[in-house]
Amino acid sequence: MSSIRKSTNITWHRPLVTQADREDRNGHRGAVLWLTGLPSSGKSTLAHELERHLFERGCNAYVLDGDNVRHRLNQDLGFSAEDRKENIRRIGEVANLFSDAGIVVISAFISPFREDRDQARALNPPGRFFEVYCKCGVEVCAQRDPKGLYRRALSGEIPEFTGVNAPYEEPLSPDCVLETGRCSLEACVEKVLILLEEKGILAVPGHGLPQAARAR
Amino acid sequence: MSSIRKSTNITWHRPLVTQADREDRNGHRGAVLWLTGLPSSGKSTLAHELERHLFERGCNAYVLDGDNVRHRLNQDLGFSAEDRKENIRRIGEVANLFSDAGIVVISAFISPFREDRDQARALNPPGRFFEVYCKCGVEVCAQRDPKGLYRRALSGEIPEFTGVNAPYEEPLSPDCVLETGRCSLEACVEKVLILLEEKGILAVPGHGLPQAARAR
Repeated sequence: MSSIRKSTNITWHRPLVTQADREDRNGHRGAVLWLTGLPSSGKSTLAHELERHLFERGCNAYVLDGDNVRHRLNQDLGFSAEDRKENIRRIGEVANLFSDAGIVVISAFISPFREDRDQARALNPPGRFFEVYCKCGVEVCAQRDPKGLYRRALSGEIPEFTGVNAPYEEPLSPDCVLETGRCSLEACVEKVLILLEEKGILAVPGHGLPQAARAR
Repeated sequence: MSSIRKSTNITWHRPLVTQADREDRNGHRGAVLWLTGLPSSGKSTLAHELERHLFERGCNAYVLDGDNVRHRLNQDLGFSAEDRKENIRRIGEVANLFSDAGIVVISAFISPFREDRDQARALNPPGRFFEVYCKCGVEVCAQRDPKGLYRRALSGEIPEFTGVNAPYEEPLSPDCVLETGRCSLEACVEKVLILLEEKGILAVPGHGLPQAARAR
């Protein structure tokens, strides 16, 4: 599970359809919205709500959900430090593929470690990756606890549960902070959509996409 | 690198935007075109040409290229039997994500083993995965040899090179056979596009998408 390159005998192919071609047609840019936060801080709910708003706005958007990816692509990984790291690395790479395909991809994973989130950012071009911190106190998260996981973690049944007996490293300079414990879902969605407009990912209604923000 | 499920404490989220929603808007279905064949049999060239034709037709299409994925998502994998298997498994999962996002994803990998290709098929819903055999004799492939790999393999420099000193298992019942050693690139592209129309993935010009073929 190391990230050491073992592959040799490989060369690059120049694609005939570029990211810019796709974006010209879509009317928006590809980008990665990297949601991070404690379990039950609202990442998945927010991700799917964002996807719906983006879809209704005519955008191509897609959620990479921690739970869903864990069942499939990363089903061979557990919750050790090494496996968590590999989990995030793979998701960062897949997010990059989606962004390259011109899609606004929304990843919703706890991703507790700064180093891993920074690595995911580094895998993506500048101006295309946005770290969105779903900030919600552990007390509120534990109170919500829709899957009863905090309860099980607090009783000792789940070892290394982020926020209880495993650390969560708060983002130092996220692109966006959402107070998911205090603000409404609608307000959080709105804040992200404004960020995407400001960063030139989404067209401002009536204005089109700014040329300057293009990362061709 | 086993495919044993280690992940626990996970539940599914019901997406608010469905594959059918995306397809209704796109005017075509999501699907996986799984190109398989010897090295230098024309998979990558065909994949990118298909992508261009699909894009010009207004479709969302994207190439997962063996070479490109090897550099990124699967950079930790080598060419052992186990790593080749894991390589194909991950690509099958990523292809499934793209197909679920409503995209016609074109994967271009040697994928020499029937078992692995069958596994990739099994990861995708029925009627959404098409095995396309790029059939080209090893003599023609070795003659083309744009990267000089056959030359190096024949001289013993590359061990386990498919077609030279590692086996390629021909598909037993592919969805489409392309004689990439004899037919023109245009003829091969045309054949795949007709397949996609027949299978209800692409709309037949002037007729729209058949309802019956939907896999909701």
